[in-house]
Amino acid sequence: MEFVAAIQANTALTIGIIFGLAALGTAIGFGLLGGKFLEGAARQPELANQLQTKMFIIAGLLDAVSIIGVAMGLLMMFANPLLSVVK
Amino acid sequence: MEFVAAIQANTALTIGIIFGLAALGTAIGFGLLGGKFLEGAARQPELANQLQTKMFIIAGLLDAVSIIGVAMGLLMMFANPLLSVVK
Amino acid sequence: MEFVAAIQANTALTIGIIFGLAALGTAIGFGLLGGKFLEGAARQPELANQLQTKMFIIAGLLDAVSIIGVAMGLLMMFANPLLSVVK
Amino acid sequence: MEFVAAIQANTALTIGIIFGLAALGTAIGFGLLGGKFLEGAARQPELANQLQTKMFIIAGLLDAVSIIGVAMGLLMMFANPLLSVVK
Amino acid sequence: MEFVAAIQANTALTIGIIFGLAALGTAIGFGLLGGKFLEGAARQPELANQLQTKMFIIAGLLDAVSIIGVAMGLLMMFANPLLSVVK
Amino acid sequence: MEFVAAIQANTALTIGIIFGLAALGTAIGFGLLGGKFLEGAARQPELANQLQTKMFIIAGLLDAVSIIGVAMGLLMMFANPLLSVVK
Amino acid sequence: MEFVAAIQANTALTIGIIFGLAALGTAIGFGLLGGKFLEGAARQPELANQLQTKMFIIAGLLDAVSIIGVAMGLLMMFANPLLSVVK
Amino acid sequence: MEFVAAIQANTALTIGIIFGLAALGTAIGFGLLGGKFLEGAARQPELANQLQTKMFIIAGLLDAVSIIGVAMGLLMMFANPLLSVVK
Amino acid sequence: MEFVAAIQANTALTIGIIFGLAALGTAIGFGLLGGKFLEGAARQPELANQLQTKMFIIAGLLDAVSIIGVAMGLLMMFANPLLSVVK
Amino acid sequence: MEFVAAIQANTALTIGIIFGLAALGTAIGFGLLGGKFLEGAARQPELANQLQTKMFIIAGLLDAVSIIGVAMGLLMMFANPLLSVVK
Amino acid sequence: MEFVAAIQANTALTIGIIFGLAALGTAIGFGLLGGKFLEGAARQPELANQLQTKMFIIAGLLDAVSIIGVAMGLLMMFANPLLSVVK
Amino acid sequence: MEFVAAIQANTALTIGIIFGLAALGTAIGFGLLGGKFLEGAARQPELANQLQTKMFIIAGLLDAVSIIGVAMGLLMMFANPLLSVVK
Amino acid sequence: MEFVAAIQANTALTIGIIFGLAALGTAIGFGLLGGKFLEGAARQPELANQLQTKMFIIAGLLDAVSIIGVAMGLLMMFANPLLSVVK
Amino acid sequence: MEFVAAIQANTALTIGIIFGLAALGTAIGFGLLGGKFLEGAARQPELANQLQTKMFIIAGLLDAVSIIGVAMGLLMMFANPLLSVVK
Repeated sequence: MEFVAAIQANTALTIGIIFGLAALGTAIGFGLLGGKFLEGAARQPELANQLQTKMFIIAGLLDAVSIIGVAMGLLMMFANPLLSVVK
Repeated sequence: MEFVAAIQANTALTIGIIFGLAALGTAIGFGLLGGKFLEGAARQPELANQLQTKMFIIAGLLDAVSIIGVAMGLLMMFANPLLSVVK
Repeated sequence: MEFVAAIQANTALTIGIIFGLAALGTAIGFGLLGGKFLEGAARQPELANQLQTKMFIIAGLLDAVSIIGVAMGLLMMFANPLLSVVK
Repeated sequence: MEFVAAIQANTALTIGIIFGLAALGTAIGFGLLGGKFLEGAARQPELANQLQTKMFIIAGLLDAVSIIGVAMGLLMMFANPLLSVVK
Repeated sequence: MEFVAAIQANTALTIGIIFGLAALGTAIGFGLLGGKFLEGAARQPELANQLQTKMFIIAGLLDAVSIIGVAMGLLMMFANPLLSVVK
Repeated sequence: MEFVAAIQANTALTIGIIFGLAALGTAIGFGLLGGKFLEGAARQPELANQLQTKMFIIAGLLDAVSIIGVAMGLLMMFANPLLSVVK
Repeated sequence: MEFVAAIQANTALTIGIIFGLAALGTAIGFGLLGGKFLEGAARQPELANQLQTKMFIIAGLLDAVSIIGVAMGLLMMFANPLLSVVK
Repeated sequence: MEFVAAIQANTALTIGIIFGLAALGTAIGFGLLGGKFLEGAARQPELANQLQTKMFIIAGLLDAVSIIGVAMGLLMMFANPLLSVVK
Repeated sequence: MEFVAAIQANTALTIGIIFGLAALGTAIGFGLLGGKFLEGAARQPELANQLQTKMFIIAGLLDAVSIIGVAMGLLMMFANPLLSVVK
Repeated sequence: MEFVAAIQANTALTIGIIFGLAALGTAIGFGLLGGKFLEGAARQPELANQLQTKMFIIAGLLDAVSIIGVAMGLLMMFANPLLSVVK
Repeated sequence: MEFVAAIQANTALTIGIIFGLAALGTAIGFGLLGGKFLEGAARQPELANQLQTKMFIIAGLLDAVSIIGVAMGLLMMFANPLLSVVK
Repeated sequence: MEFVAAIQANTALTIGIIFGLAALGTAIGFGLLGGKFLEGAARQPELANQLQTKMFIIAGLLDAVSIIGVAMGLLMMFANPLLSVVK
Repeated sequence: MEFVAAIQANTALTIGIIFGLAALGTAIGFGLLGGKFLEGAARQPELANQLQTKMFIIAGLLDAVSIIGVAMGLLMMFANPLLSVVK
Repeated sequence: MEFVAAIQANTALTIGIIFGLAALGTAIGFGLLGGKFLEGAARQPELANQLQTKMFIIAGLLDAVSIIGVAMGLLMMFANPLLSVVK
């Protein structure tokens, strides 16, 4: 039981690092990307919809690793696969 | 009982890291994004509403990981799933 | 009782991290955003009210995660949900 | 009694982190915001009063989380709600 | 008595963090703000007095949290409210 | 069993470092790359599709190490190869 | 006696943090402010005295928190008010 | 056996440092490189293919050390050569 | 005697922090200030003496807190007032 | 045997520091270098091949220390020369 | 004797911090200041001697705290005044 | 034997610090230098060979300390001179 | 003897901090200063010798504290004055 | 013997700090200096040899402290003068 607790305690910190850095990175990344998008859309409004479609594609790429990290964080939270070897 | 307490103590720090970094990132991200939006809206006021709609879409993307982090922080606060294995 | 004290001691640091980083982020974020708003309002005073309305919307988004963090900090301060499992 | 002392000792550091980071953030934020305001007021003096009103609104938003943090720091200083569970 | 000493020792560090960060922030903030003010006053000397009045208002806002922090630091130095619960 | 637990506890931190830094890097990298892409697409809309194809190639390169890191993090999570020598 | 020594030892570090950060901040702040002042005085020498008066006012504000910190550091050095409760 | 476990635990952190820093560096590096490439391709579309070929060569150089690091991380994960001397 | 030694050992570090940060800040501050002064004096040589007088005033302000810190460091070195309470 | 294990455990961290920093540096260095190369090749396409040859020479210099570090990391991994004195 | 050794050991670190930060600050400060001086002297060679005289004055101010720190470091090295109270 | 092991363990970290920082510095340094070289060679292709010769000289200087560090790291790896006094 | 060893061990670190920071600062400082010198000499070659003389004077000032630090480091290495009191 | 080992172990770290920071600083310093040199040589090729001579002088100054550090690191490696007092 104490082995399980030691792993769970470190897992808690792991989840904090993943979620914290992913949220920080995503927010700054979209701040840079969205600012350029609004700039482009304000200069050439007739292209706004086309640019928006393109931005969504970048957004998907930008978010990808963060979302995987979030999914893995959730997995570790509810069914920590690291525990399987000590049970 | 001591195992539960050790996990809860680390979980407290985890919540602080998630909420702190998410708040920091979101605030700086919207500071960059909103500044560009106001700039665009001041230059071409006839596009302001259109730009605003677009900004909301970016805002949703910008906030996404932070909000998931917040939701997970709340979950850990009220019903910590990490404790299920040591009970 | 000692388990409760250990969690409360870490919760104190958690509250400090959340409030400190949220205050730092919000202040810098509004410094960037508000500077752009005043710039825009000084250049086109006839748009000032319209820009202000838009800035409030961004302000709401910028503040959102910080305010949630503040609310959660207050909750942890007065009725720490992390303690429910060790009582 | 020793549990109370351990929580109070960490609370002291918490207050230092909240007040220190909030003061740092607010000072830098107003340095950025106020510089833009004086720039705008020097360029278009006839708009100075209008800009000032708008700056007060931003100032309120900029200060909000810091002031809440200050209020909570004061609360923890005089009547630490974290202690209620160990008495 | 040892509980009182442990809290006082941490309170000493707290005062150092508050005063140090508040002094650092205020100095840099006024360096940015005052530079813009002198720039504006040198460009339009007839506006100098008007700008100065406005700068005082910003200075009040910029200093606010630092001064509250200073006041609280002084309070903790002379009559530490954190000690009331362990006496 | 205690050797396994010690390795698993460090592995938890490892996963956090990999996922956190990879998410941070990917988000900032795409923020820089995507901003340039939208800028180019807004200036020369007739080249947008061609540029997008090229961006996908860069995106693949940009993501490569992060995705490998993610894959290895998942492997360590579900079937930690580091444990094979202590079983 | 040992309680007094523990508080004095931490107070020594506190004084170092206050004096060090206050000196660092003041020096950088006046470096920024004074540079702008000399720039303005070189461009419009007939305004130099007027600008200097204004700079003194800003200097007072810039120095305020540092000087309070210095005064408090001196107080802690000669008659440490934190010791009153353990005597 | 305990010697093996101590080395494996440190190896876990090593893998995290290698993969995390390599992913961070690669992502930022390609963000800088790819942005310049898209800029050049948008300005002179007739050169796009030629530039892309050149970018691949740089990409190979940029990735080289990261990929070697990844390969070595995998090797340490599956067949840690550091263990050979303690078996 | 051991209490005196513990305070003196921490005082040594205190002196290092004060002198080190004060020297760093003063050097960078005068680097910024002096650069602007030479720039102004090179552009308008007839104003050089007037600017120099003004620079001395700023120098006095810039140095003030550092010099106080130096004086206090010297005091702590030769007649440490923190020791008075443990003798 | 325990001496060997202690050296191997530190060697693991050493390898992580070498590979991680080398990968980070190489990636950022080629991001800067390659961006300039593409810029030059886009502006003067007739020089592209000549510039590429030159870039390879710089690439060799840029990579040199990293590659040596990688080679040494591999050597330490497979046949740690630090162990020769304790065997 | 052990008290003296403990103070001397910390004094060694103190000297390192003072000398290291003072050398770092002085070098960067003169790098900034000297660059501006050479720029001014290259633009107006007839003013070079006059500017040089002025630069010496600034150099004296820039160096002052560093030199005091150096002098104090030497004093602590040869006749550590902190030891007088424990002898 | 244990003295030898303690020195060898610290030497391992030393090698990591030397190789890691040297690789990081060399890569960034050549990124800056090489970018300027390609810029110059693209602007004046008739000077490219002359500039390249000059760049090699700078490269030799830039690399010098890193290469010495690498040589010393290798020496410490294969025949650690620090061990001679404890054998 | 053990007191001497403790002081010598800390002195070793002191020498590393002094030499490392002094080398770092001097290199960056001359990088800034020398760049400006070459710029000036390239623009006005007839002034190159005059500028060089002036640069040597600045170099002397820039190096001064570093060289003193180096001298003191050498002194501590060969005849550590800190040891005189414990012999 | 154990005193010698403790000093040698710290000396190992010292050598790492000196060599690592010196290599980092030299590389970045020559990156800045060499870039300016190539820029000047590309703009005025007839001055290239004259500039190169001047750059060598700066290079000597830039390298000086690093080379002294390297020499001292070598001395400590082969004949550590810090050991003379404990033998």
